[in-house]
Amino acid sequence: MPRYDAPVRDMQFVLHELLQLQNYSNLPGFADASPETIDQILDEGAKFAKNVLFPLNAVGDKQGCKRASDASVKTPDGFPDAYKQLVENGWPLLSAHPEMGGQGLPHAVNIAWTEMVSSSNMAFGMYPGLTHGAYQALMAGGSDELKAKYGPKMASGEWAGTMNLTEPHCGTDLGLMKTKAVPQGDGTYKITGQKIWISGGEQDLTDNIIHLVLARIEGAPEGIKGISLFVVPKYMVKEDGSLGERNACQCGGLEEKMGIHGNATCVMNYDGATGWLVGEEHKGMRTMFVMMNEARLGVGLQGMSQAEIAYQNALDFAKDRVQGRSLTGVQAPDKPADPIIVHPDVRRMLLEQKAFLEGARAFVYWMAFQGDLQHKSPDEAVQQKAEDYMALLTPVVKAYLTHKGYESANLGLQVHGGSGFTREWGLEQIVRDCRISLIYEGTNGVQALDLVGRKLGANGGRAVFSFFAEIDEFIAENDKVEGLELYVEGLKTVRAQLQDGTMWLMQNGMSDFNNAGASSHDYLHLMGLTALAFMWARMAKIALEKKDSGDPFYAAKLATGRYFVERMLPDAPAHLAKVKTGAAAMMALDAEQF
Amino acid sequence: MPRYDAPVRDMQFVLHELLQLQNYSNLPGFADASPETIDQILDEGAKFAKNVLFPLNAVGDKQGCKRASDASVKTPDGFPDAYKQLVENGWPLLSAHPEMGGQGLPHAVNIAWTEMVSSSNMAFGMYPGLTHGAYQALMAGGSDELKAKYGPKMASGEWAGTMNLTEPHCGTDLGLMKTKAVPQGDGTYKITGQKIWISGGEQDLTDNIIHLVLARIEGAPEGIKGISLFVVPKYMVKEDGSLGERNACQCGGLEEKMGIHGNATCVMNYDGATGWLVGEEHKGMRTMFVMMNEARLGVGLQGMSQAEIAYQNALDFAKDRVQGRSLTGVQAPDKPADPIIVHPDVRRMLLEQKAFLEGARAFVYWMAFQGDLQHKSPDEAVQQKAEDYMALLTPVVKAYLTHKGYESANLGLQVHGGSGFTREWGLEQIVRDCRISLIYEGTNGVQALDLVGRKLGANGGRAVFSFFAEIDEFIAENDKVEGLELYVEGLKTVRAQLQDGTMWLMQNGMSDFNNAGASSHDYLHLMGLTALAFMWARMAKIALEKKDSGDPFYAAKLATGRYFVERMLPDAPAHLAKVKTGAAAMMALDAEQF
Repeated sequence: MPRYDAPVRDMQFVLHELLQLQNYSNLPGFADASPETIDQILDEGAKFAKNVLFPLNAVGDKQGCKRASDASVKTPDGFPDAYKQLVENGWPLLSAHPEMGGQGLPHAVNIAWTEMVSSSNMAFGMYPGLTHGAYQALMAGGSDELKAKYGPKMASGEWAGTMNLTEPHCGTDLGLMKTKAVPQGDGTYKITGQKIWISGGEQDLTDNIIHLVLARIEGAPEGIKGISLFVVPKYMVKEDGSLGERNACQCGGLEEKMGIHGNATCVMNYDGATGWLVGEEHKGMRTMFVMMNEARLGVGLQGMSQAEIAYQNALDFAKDRVQGRSLTGVQAPDKPADPIIVHPDVRRMLLEQKAFLEGARAFVYWMAFQGDLQHKSPDEAVQQKAEDYMALLTPVVKAYLTHKGYESANLGLQVHGGSGFTREWGLEQIVRDCRISLIYEGTNGVQALDLVGRKLGANGGRAVFSFFAEIDEFIAENDKVEGLELYVEGLKTVRAQLQDGTMWLMQNGMSDFNNAGASSHDYLHLMGLTALAFMWARMAKIALEKKDSGDPFYAAKLATGRYFVERMLPDAPAHLAKVKTGAAAMMALDAEQF
Repeated sequence: MPRYDAPVRDMQFVLHELLQLQNYSNLPGFADASPETIDQILDEGAKFAKNVLFPLNAVGDKQGCKRASDASVKTPDGFPDAYKQLVENGWPLLSAHPEMGGQGLPHAVNIAWTEMVSSSNMAFGMYPGLTHGAYQALMAGGSDELKAKYGPKMASGEWAGTMNLTEPHCGTDLGLMKTKAVPQGDGTYKITGQKIWISGGEQDLTDNIIHLVLARIEGAPEGIKGISLFVVPKYMVKEDGSLGERNACQCGGLEEKMGIHGNATCVMNYDGATGWLVGEEHKGMRTMFVMMNEARLGVGLQGMSQAEIAYQNALDFAKDRVQGRSLTGVQAPDKPADPIIVHPDVRRMLLEQKAFLEGARAFVYWMAFQGDLQHKSPDEAVQQKAEDYMALLTPVVKAYLTHKGYESANLGLQVHGGSGFTREWGLEQIVRDCRISLIYEGTNGVQALDLVGRKLGANGGRAVFSFFAEIDEFIAENDKVEGLELYVEGLKTVRAQLQDGTMWLMQNGMSDFNNAGASSHDYLHLMGLTALAFMWARMAKIALEKKDSGDPFYAAKLATGRYFVERMLPDAPAHLAKVKTGAAAMMALDAEQF
């Protein structure tokens, strides 16, 4: 029953009209990303997502993955073939480095494709997604030898990659890690320990799996400063690139989970497996963070992507299902009842989804573009600002987009009424799959703490002040534009609220760290709302200029933006009030009084 | 891994200290509900829930129900035996009418038992829950003959009952109903049609199932005014009460659902089944609404009940799981890390649950008590007010408690981090089971529309004005009480906001019905917050008086109430702002522009 059609028109709007990638052809890779090329990628991607990935989404949920007694893992029917097509069509190469065989296209283009994969089949998408993350870590921290050995085949997707961080007793607090690495004197290490929740730790999609494993070298300093990163291939790779013997690591079991059943979540046992150091000894976390930032943007995107498919199906349902009559009189006299989209509260749910989705898409694509600027801009000031934004806003993308994305997926289910709760309509799977995005790659609470405890105050608050300055510049330029007042006023108001919250945190978060912790969640949401308000104001400006073009898309954009300002921004003062309440209420109870 | 222990102390607080049921021994049945009897019921109920029902909760989810080719349905292992014990122990009789063999105890007592059942095993609890609903409808509308025939065995739970409303093309809009009833001239009717989503439509727990079925008598008026209610027993009941031949109705299939797998959700086919009219022809909806009001309170309770078990397990996890150190320095030097309950944001999640739960428990128990007053008070004014409250606030209990209960269950999952997403820890089942509560017995959107469209303006707004007056009386009495200022101020503020929203609706909802529809969701939440603020202020008053009693329960109550005022009430102005925005943003788009 459910369907997925990539929102190509809205993606084009963000890439061509909002970000205007065509104006950056001076940056490496951007010249190859002409509007025509981008449109072709979007069209082909949309077909692949609709015809190849989406039909396997419900199958993957129903079948899940199976581990055999020889510790091999079978993915759902159709996954190996779809993966083969993915690699053959070169999709993983879109934004990979040219020296690794990649096309070197902007991340801002790749993210549109990634959204399609995540929307159409989130569980499947995690296989190439994590491979890409592992590939990036290797490129960021690996020696030339390691890069040459693994890079091209990971870039193409021929080999998969995984990230091994969590152990049974440590997730957020990686300093407690026990997995150990013993140097063998020949440049290799023997890795021993157990890792859990390893997505794609074993599967039947690729000939080899390249595990990136965090471990503690014998005698290393305690805590987080004694952790190193290793490459541990499932099969050894010979000099000529062919596969050698099996390494001493295997899948010890699969987790039974709420969702993403099509992805194999493995317990991985390393029993003296051979590994190679990535980067410097004891500096593994640094490289891992490179990977994690990208992974966190990807997870934020997942939250939004599941909201997108939920929205599409809720919209279909609302147009199709007839039940009751409009409050203001019969709208469909030829039918036994009116389609439920006539009801204001059904529209509230749909618009809540739509206004979030379009704002979130602009925000996360804009962030992907900042990632491009950070690495490719010739202008150091632009690079610096982009790097600052990536640091400051990555936790916001991750936590805000997954939190609101999950709410939004739930609204999609709710529009379906009882049908939403049945398997048949597919919405309940969307909600179950989406739920993990609030947790992995650092729970949303950890993101909020990262924001207020680490990112906000870094370099004297340079990042957030840049953000305010960019918003102020927009406001100054557009303050008197007729027809844009609502959006600019909304932005002004929430920007002032965010500043108020920021000042409160700067004054009170340092004197009592618990104030920072207690306010982190609401502060992050306030920043998320501000980011979306900024995107909406910019989008409204474009739409206003083109609203007489004859394309009803622009009028819809303005109306949706109006919903955002009138109906979503009122949450901002509530978040601000909570921020400014501080920690006292939170810390009043002893643990035993709860 | 998960556990359930009934929150007996908090239940006692609500029943003995807040509602003070012991002061109403003049009402029928209340004299039998002495504090000692109530405590005994709570203790025995807690044991039954913990030892009999809870151990079957995960089993029921995993096994689900199975339909055989003969259309019989097998419930999960252990369910039939547990149900037998439930009946043998007389639990369903607690609040049933004495003339039907019941104990006639107050609903306010029965609701505590119902909460325990819902928390420990929601899917199981629906079997006796819906039986009770069907029993109530029969008692409200049935002839003496029907009551005598079915009443006692439904009251005891020996026979089960079901409610048959929904058809494939009609849920909310029952006027579209097609199931027909043909009079046979002998006082019976032949019922033909298909009903869907019938909870417990078939099962292996009881010897007979008494279906209450809505159908249209041939030649009846169109729409909702032509619907009649029928009793359709699975097995005919002979004069001597023994079972006769099988009726022509059977289970055509089971729904595959997101949760509550232990409950059989049936497609029911009626093929000329014999039925008896309940109440008058074409007046079936009136009786059904009697049942639905009670069922809606029950569903609100379910939302809260799932939040309760989620909270208990989140709390255990937060005390047990060590990860990272407190922001203000090491708290557990003997451990490798501090328990995560030291972190303010973890406490935020726990307190968000706790403050909701305790406020919601007070609210829904108070409502059950209003139900008692409505039927049992000798004072007509008290009866009238209770009836008004039941009408006005039932949709609020249903929608607000399930909405916030689901959020709260999700917070419990979130506290668990990755473990929350795995089957093993049980939280994901809680979230899946809880999800239906926002949908059935009328979606939360339908509740909101019922509130603003039907209940609010009834009798010139008498109900809401009574509610304001009762709050004002409390405020006047307690305005100057030292130590209570925070709670009274919070109540005053939200009460003023609710009044503001009410006035706006009265002025704008009539001139454009879409304004009422567009504001209904937020108005309902504003009323929910006000109801909880009223309960919290009253609870704080009691706790303040007893805080030096040596029982740390009262200090915890005050601190939790503080969290409610400081951290949850700030949502009220956001809801008010949205209420007052009206319908324009909602109605701006054509269906095709979405």
